[in-house]
Amino acid sequence: MVAAVKVTPRLTIPVFKQAATRAVNLLRTIQFTHPPSCPCHSNPNHHHHHGGAGITPFARRSKRGYATPQDSSQLKEYAFEMAASSIRFGNGATQEVGMDLKNMGAKRVAVVTDSTVDRLTAMKQVRDALDSENVTYKVFNRVRVEPKDTSIKEAIDWAKPFGADAFLAVGGGSVIDTAKLMNLYSCYPDADFLDFVNAPLGKGRPVDKKLKPLIAVPTTAGTGSETTGVAIFDLVSKHAKTGIAHRNLKPTLGICDPLNTQTMPSAVKASSGLDVLCHSLESWTAIPYTERVPRPTNPILRPSYQGANPISDIFSLNALKSTVKYLPRSVKDPEDHEAQTQMMLAATLAGVGFGNAGVHLCHADKTSTPSGMSYPISGRNPGYQHAGYEVDTPIIPHGVSVAVSAPAVFRFTGPSNPERHLQAAECFGVDVSNAKRESAGEILADALAKFLADLGDQPRGLKELGFGSEHIEDLVEGTIPQARVLMLAPGLAKELQQEKDQLRRLFEDAMTH
Amino acid sequence: MVAAVKVTPRLTIPVFKQAATRAVNLLRTIQFTHPPSCPCHSNPNHHHHHGGAGITPFARRSKRGYATPQDSSQLKEYAFEMAASSIRFGNGATQEVGMDLKNMGAKRVAVVTDSTVDRLTAMKQVRDALDSENVTYKVFNRVRVEPKDTSIKEAIDWAKPFGADAFLAVGGGSVIDTAKLMNLYSCYPDADFLDFVNAPLGKGRPVDKKLKPLIAVPTTAGTGSETTGVAIFDLVSKHAKTGIAHRNLKPTLGICDPLNTQTMPSAVKASSGLDVLCHSLESWTAIPYTERVPRPTNPILRPSYQGANPISDIFSLNALKSTVKYLPRSVKDPEDHEAQTQMMLAATLAGVGFGNAGVHLCHADKTSTPSGMSYPISGRNPGYQHAGYEVDTPIIPHGVSVAVSAPAVFRFTGPSNPERHLQAAECFGVDVSNAKRESAGEILADALAKFLADLGDQPRGLKELGFGSEHIEDLVEGTIPQARVLMLAPGLAKELQQEKDQLRRLFEDAMTH
Repeated sequence: MVAAVKVTPRLTIPVFKQAATRAVNLLRTIQFTHPPSCPCHSNPNHHHHHGGAGITPFARRSKRGYATPQDSSQLKEYAFEMAASSIRFGNGATQEVGMDLKNMGAKRVAVVTDSTVDRLTAMKQVRDALDSENVTYKVFNRVRVEPKDTSIKEAIDWAKPFGADAFLAVGGGSVIDTAKLMNLYSCYPDADFLDFVNAPLGKGRPVDKKLKPLIAVPTTAGTGSETTGVAIFDLVSKHAKTGIAHRNLKPTLGICDPLNTQTMPSAVKASSGLDVLCHSLESWTAIPYTERVPRPTNPILRPSYQGANPISDIFSLNALKSTVKYLPRSVKDPEDHEAQTQMMLAATLAGVGFGNAGVHLCHADKTSTPSGMSYPISGRNPGYQHAGYEVDTPIIPHGVSVAVSAPAVFRFTGPSNPERHLQAAECFGVDVSNAKRESAGEILADALAKFLADLGDQPRGLKELGFGSEHIEDLVEGTIPQARVLMLAPGLAKELQQEKDQLRRLFEDAMTH
Repeated sequence: MVAAVKVTPRLTIPVFKQAATRAVNLLRTIQFTHPPSCPCHSNPNHHHHHGGAGITPFARRSKRGYATPQDSSQLKEYAFEMAASSIRFGNGATQEVGMDLKNMGAKRVAVVTDSTVDRLTAMKQVRDALDSENVTYKVFNRVRVEPKDTSIKEAIDWAKPFGADAFLAVGGGSVIDTAKLMNLYSCYPDADFLDFVNAPLGKGRPVDKKLKPLIAVPTTAGTGSETTGVAIFDLVSKHAKTGIAHRNLKPTLGICDPLNTQTMPSAVKASSGLDVLCHSLESWTAIPYTERVPRPTNPILRPSYQGANPISDIFSLNALKSTVKYLPRSVKDPEDHEAQTQMMLAATLAGVGFGNAGVHLCHADKTSTPSGMSYPISGRNPGYQHAGYEVDTPIIPHGVSVAVSAPAVFRFTGPSNPERHLQAAECFGVDVSNAKRESAGEILADALAKFLADLGDQPRGLKELGFGSEHIEDLVEGTIPQARVLMLAPGLAKELQQEKDQLRRLFEDAMTH
């Protein structure tokens, strides 16, 4: 425990209540956007599972006095569902993958990676493992880091004629996400690309059949993509980061081999670890699943990003504690294998947490409207070049772009659930025994700022990235790229303006921490 | 926090070290029995996945300096694998099951239950849900509570000609376990019953293909069977409790609806909750996976019961904390729905924990040699009739039979891992800040004894069940029913005698707590 952070409470009680309402409202919009025109709930193609009897669970529930069928769209959620890939964890476990694929009966495996990972030991291990089991495979190594719809379509075009009966992804989140979509569109060869993309940008069609087996071998300790049914990409035409999210996209097995993360440079360890930090903090502070509307009319429509729930909480909080403890060690000492191993575990735990609860302002929920504050931060880089990244063009790594706004975000969300924000601050070693509820956001923000400063080489706010007040409007627009789509929905325009005002203040607050 | 338990240390340090060695050795035998003649590792039929190249991962590992291929049977485990069913949790979630089966495309569903549950609301909900989605199904309601091989074979004989394309189990652990085996043997119609039964009683054949979808709807908060790949039964001819354990037996989905547990009488709530308590305590204190030998030569041979690992630990410890907090409330107040809900969650969490780590002395590992101390306690009942169970014949409910020996068991296992035993005692509210490591087992035993006494209506040891010193030999033999099988294995005879001595002392110690 470090000493209690000194806080000058900025808020009096009535102001605190307003702040709480504001934070909850924005979180609800960010986590659970559901315009009445959402195709996911109006397109008849998505209701072909509903059956003919016309009695939804809510009609049945009404008999028991819970609700009438008419108001089901206003009903809050009453259940949550936890799903995660099987996870194998161990130093050297990569070498088992040949036997795994053989055990599955795979005769034609699409190995998906990027050109960098293709030269690393992880891919050598994979090739050896497949060769020694005589598994037939072909390597696609042209995955783009931070994939775009165009790069994903190129990968799909490669996959379709190959006709894989199993997929093997070896790399970071970009590789694993791309492999998920190669698998999806190979199994639905006639689908239009936008069919499965999250509404409202795409049609939000649910994945209603099992895909081919996919084994994911992560080479970073960050995205947690090996456990989730989420794939994220940049939809260039809409200037938006969006994705496809469904439980059936989950890998069959994630092989977490800490030896594969040893090659990460220290700066990459830091930024991927900050991704883990924000995954765990955002899912831990997400609005609870019981506050989500509408209650799904069919379980297949229940989203992966459901809001915080009692099982995701366990994962998120454990991942947060581990990250606070092991990330600094892992960044500072390349020989600290214990810390690297624990960070790989934390990344996976956080993946299970956010993969079932969702994320919010830093990342945005990725399945719905906003792209999150990190998207325009990375995408509209005024020219910042992050230390330790040996690339030719300016870069704000994903983890850096999510963490840089985190102090401002959690200062803002504090009032929505002070207890959780204080518990999170406690994970950073803050003594919260005498902390005031009104200061919860401030306390967590300070703990985060101190953690980032101690980690080293992290920007102390948007200003150090080169952003100024002249960029704020652009950043806000980049966070809610589908503003016009939303404004078509009756009743939402005013709320949207309020939301933009809040985001404006959030970006201003994130200028320096 | 209650006041620290006063302990008179019974052990001096050198004696403590001996006790530690003794406890570790017995735990190792109980958790990870692997006689050299274990069919699972010698029967060539089980190696048909190994592939032709003849290079095992350990041969490859040897190149990297870890080990030589020759000694792979002595190598300790280096990886663990976590798998759990998807879990849906919510009051009333049972009514979604019709849509789930329809979503899966099921056209012919085998609904498995017992005659009691068949009359409860849970089955009414299930029938309504299936009818309203026009799902074709047939109900098998003759599952035997505490199934025997004979009752399971009867169920399999019903299932094979029915030709289900999906299974739905509605009931306690007996029902869910029976449904798993109906599914297994319907998918392997030509297999002999003993083929898949755990070695050495059966042939320990791995389940090498996907089975039909199975949805489990538990009606008790105890077994956690909805999340595990384990099915337990009494193999009558061998006087042994054994089972079949493989990840592929896992239900596709567990629907945990706390409304289904409202009908449990208070005494049933208590005994099923004690099952959860022991699942969580045993898996938390199990020997770590890295101490298990042999390292599997193919990942398909990695057992579900792997030993404690960093992910199972999270589940086990959370389940333990919840059980200590909510079980007494749930037993004392039938209207305390929060406590019932939390106990259902705890049962599932404990299921994920022990389903991946295993259990030990109270339950035994269920996949290997010993039946655990609970088996002969229940099976050789001298005539005890547990309060609150309205049955004609004497009965020691499963949860009672595991908990009655728990104080003696954890007093014995304490030296094997004092830190974990102290952490467990802390979950019971004991202040362990000044506790001595040598007293860890004693402290946990006392906390357990106090918890059982406060819960009410629990026997204060084997004596109150009617057992005396004259029964001990019989209880020991019942715990290790395959003694003769084991004694055929060279080198084990002496160890077995030592093990029996230890069990004798354990049963003596369990006479009164």
